[in-house]
Amino acid sequence: MRFVSDQRLADGVREREFTLGEIPGILWTPASAPTSAPLILLGHPGGLRRMYPRLVARARDCTAQGFAAATLELPGGGDRPASAAAEQARADLRRALAAGEPVTDDIVDRLVLPLVEKAVPEWRAVLDALLALPEIGGPVGYSGGVISIGVRLAVVEPRIVAAVLFAGSFVPRAMFAEARRVTIPLHVLLQWDDEGNDRQMALDLFDAFGSAEKTLHANMCGHTGVPRFEGESANRFFGRHLRTPPSS
Amino acid sequence: MRFVSDQRLADGVREREFTLGEIPGILWTPASAPTSAPLILLGHPGGLRRMYPRLVARARDCTAQGFAAATLELPGGGDRPASAAAEQARADLRRALAAGEPVTDDIVDRLVLPLVEKAVPEWRAVLDALLALPEIGGPVGYSGGVISIGVRLAVVEPRIVAAVLFAGSFVPRAMFAEARRVTIPLHVLLQWDDEGNDRQMALDLFDAFGSAEKTLHANMCGHTGVPRFEGESANRFFGRHLRTPPSS
Repeated sequence: MRFVSDQRLADGVREREFTLGEIPGILWTPASAPTSAPLILLGHPGGLRRMYPRLVARARDCTAQGFAAATLELPGGGDRPASAAAEQARADLRRALAAGEPVTDDIVDRLVLPLVEKAVPEWRAVLDALLALPEIGGPVGYSGGVISIGVRLAVVEPRIVAAVLFAGSFVPRAMFAEARRVTIPLHVLLQWDDEGNDRQMALDLFDAFGSAEKTLHANMCGHTGVPRFEGESANRFFGRHLRTPPSS
Repeated sequence: MRFVSDQRLADGVREREFTLGEIPGILWTPASAPTSAPLILLGHPGGLRRMYPRLVARARDCTAQGFAAATLELPGGGDRPASAAAEQARADLRRALAAGEPVTDDIVDRLVLPLVEKAVPEWRAVLDALLALPEIGGPVGYSGGVISIGVRLAVVEPRIVAAVLFAGSFVPRAMFAEARRVTIPLHVLLQWDDEGNDRQMALDLFDAFGSAEKTLHANMCGHTGVPRFEGESANRFFGRHLRTPPSS
């Protein structure tokens, strides 16, 4: 991991862009330099530059609690090359949606499974690098979408102890078996009237999670309309699970 | 309304038992005597004495925010006489559950609809009496079950401006049409693994609500296992909607 920029935002939060090999990422740490801070990995649908305003707002929620936050570009996101297969799957998806046809399992599998396969090792590698910094100590939470990436990370990455998952993307059927193996505390966000999301599939996925503590928060206002108070609610979830002793 | 007892709890909260005609109820007000406080009506399944420990805990959540809280015995609850028809419906429900048979619409209608018909005017009457007290000014929220009583109140009682509804009881099909007429902000609690509750019906009811702001919070741990953090979440919901200006 190599830092390529280092700046203070207006409120004193330190923002460092980095690269992990060829992959760009961003690290935010609280204004008052922490030691061994908990870390929240901020998931997103790809395209760091486009997502930056929302990511930095979520990062500030983390740093306000004394947590560090970090994110990494997804395979095919931003300037990262997309595979021909992923491009084809995306084109097939767009065609199905435009034609009002059902999005088949085949399209969802081709769209999501290779992304999960490629992204998860990258996120684990960035976790190695971040946890080697003196200012970051863990525990680690995952927050956001792509929900299938979050599910896979929750299953395979023992350093992640709690996750806020955004149920806003297509979920391959194969992920349901993985969902049953998730045991960490989960806080799942669902936009009830998200036209681009299969609500029943999201409810079925929530039902499948093996976690003893799992909470579903459903709201109105479409895919991008998660209410501000849900951000606070997610903060409190991480406050309960990433802090020792837990704070209300 | 006639007060029949007046005491201070250990934390200074004032608890007054009252009767409204023959109906017993309880009023809690904050330790520091408020003027024109908002009021939260605490719904419950009937049986004030049995429910008292949970009710007083919920009342304390209200008074801690500067709100008054009040509750009223339900028709057939506690020492109040139950109608023969209600007794029959309850016996039919128990028999169906014991036999593992489906709970028919007919049983649910006979169990819940007369209760709603009788309870709602009583809760509106107690609201008249409570709002006549100088220490209570409104606005008013409803919190709890029986969810069909909360739905009916939300439709017919304009003084109720926000409701936390506990989806933990059978819902007559007729209530779905009423649910579509609800427009106040709603915060709906569902225990995902509540064996005695029809989860799909609760989800359908949430979907039916006409409110632009509606939130569903689903958790594990059975009918009575609503996590403590959901109490805080409901408090914040009322904080946003019963206070002017809203506080976070």
